[in-house]
Amino acid sequence: MPVIPINYCPSCGARTATLIPQGDNLPRAVCESCGSIHYQNPKIVVGCIPIWEDKVLLCRRAIEPRHGLWTLPAGFMENSESVTAGAMREALEEANAIVEIEDLYTVYSIPHISQVYMMFRARLLNLNFSPGSESLEVKLVAEADIPWDQIAFVMVRNTLKHFYADRKSGVFVPRFGDIKPPER
Amino acid sequence: MPVIPINYCPSCGARTATLIPQGDNLPRAVCESCGSIHYQNPKIVVGCIPIWEDKVLLCRRAIEPRHGLWTLPAGFMENSESVTAGAMREALEEANAIVEIEDLYTVYSIPHISQVYMMFRARLLNLNFSPGSESLEVKLVAEADIPWDQIAFVMVRNTLKHFYADRKSGVFVPRFGDIKPPER
Repeated sequence: MPVIPINYCPSCGARTATLIPQGDNLPRAVCESCGSIHYQNPKIVVGCIPIWEDKVLLCRRAIEPRHGLWTLPAGFMENSESVTAGAMREALEEANAIVEIEDLYTVYSIPHISQVYMMFRARLLNLNFSPGSESLEVKLVAEADIPWDQIAFVMVRNTLKHFYADRKSGVFVPRFGDIKPPER
Repeated sequence: MPVIPINYCPSCGARTATLIPQGDNLPRAVCESCGSIHYQNPKIVVGCIPIWEDKVLLCRRAIEPRHGLWTLPAGFMENSESVTAGAMREALEEANAIVEIEDLYTVYSIPHISQVYMMFRARLLNLNFSPGSESLEVKLVAEADIPWDQIAFVMVRNTLKHFYADRKSGVFVPRFGDIKPPER
């Protein structure tokens, strides 16, 4: 989801100007015809680690980017939903998986693509999962079988590494951090 | 920052249609002229509890909504920054306060206004704070002096209540939750 420049006012269709509104300190797309200011802000990606006994549910991506690589169910949060509702919805859409969201576990900012990832630990409630339209394959994977060199995104690899380290120690510690270019 | 309807394509200026793109399941503003799809997603508000000894730094709002009420420094996260950079920037803008961000502490979804709040605990690094342009007044407040009936937002009240409860117990536990209408 690339950032699309706001050349025209989404509200009235007039050409916008790029200028710093009064009381602001950053250039914005401003409509001098209807007066509206169009802000562009980071997008939130919500997802979860669906856990079943000693395994986690991974999805193999049927879409770009990273087609064919493995990921945790996650996707763009929608307007009018909560972060937990979004994480549940993504597990359902990508893996037809019914999950119960537990704690917020990792939060990663990726400034160079203006995204923030929020991943929860979750309980997979039954084994009736199957690939959604964005997944080629979904399966429960034990730690020894995680395809570390075939993981789609850094935030997924980090989240899984933290998860297994914390499971060993018995204490799950929420983590947050930044992911720098060229990684994502 | 109300959600502005996308009547015209921000990219090419043509009238948009509201329809469900192929492979999607929600109506979006679609430009049938240039083919671009315009998603609207929740916005992130980042902020912190600036802590100095047994006090926290509160700001009295010089802007709507909730003009004249007290808040913690927080504001909309900008593109190309991390959540911690955003929280630091807001403390600087609203209170000319230099803070060092510690742990992520509370995350609140407010689905009815499509916003997610992320509040950090932070160390105030010196006492050279003063009101920024969006604040009437900024001051360090001890627990006994928190103006509970003059707090601007539910997420601020909840964050402060958790903070004082956890400070008593000595263990800071991250919290997340939803705030329902009509509150915000």
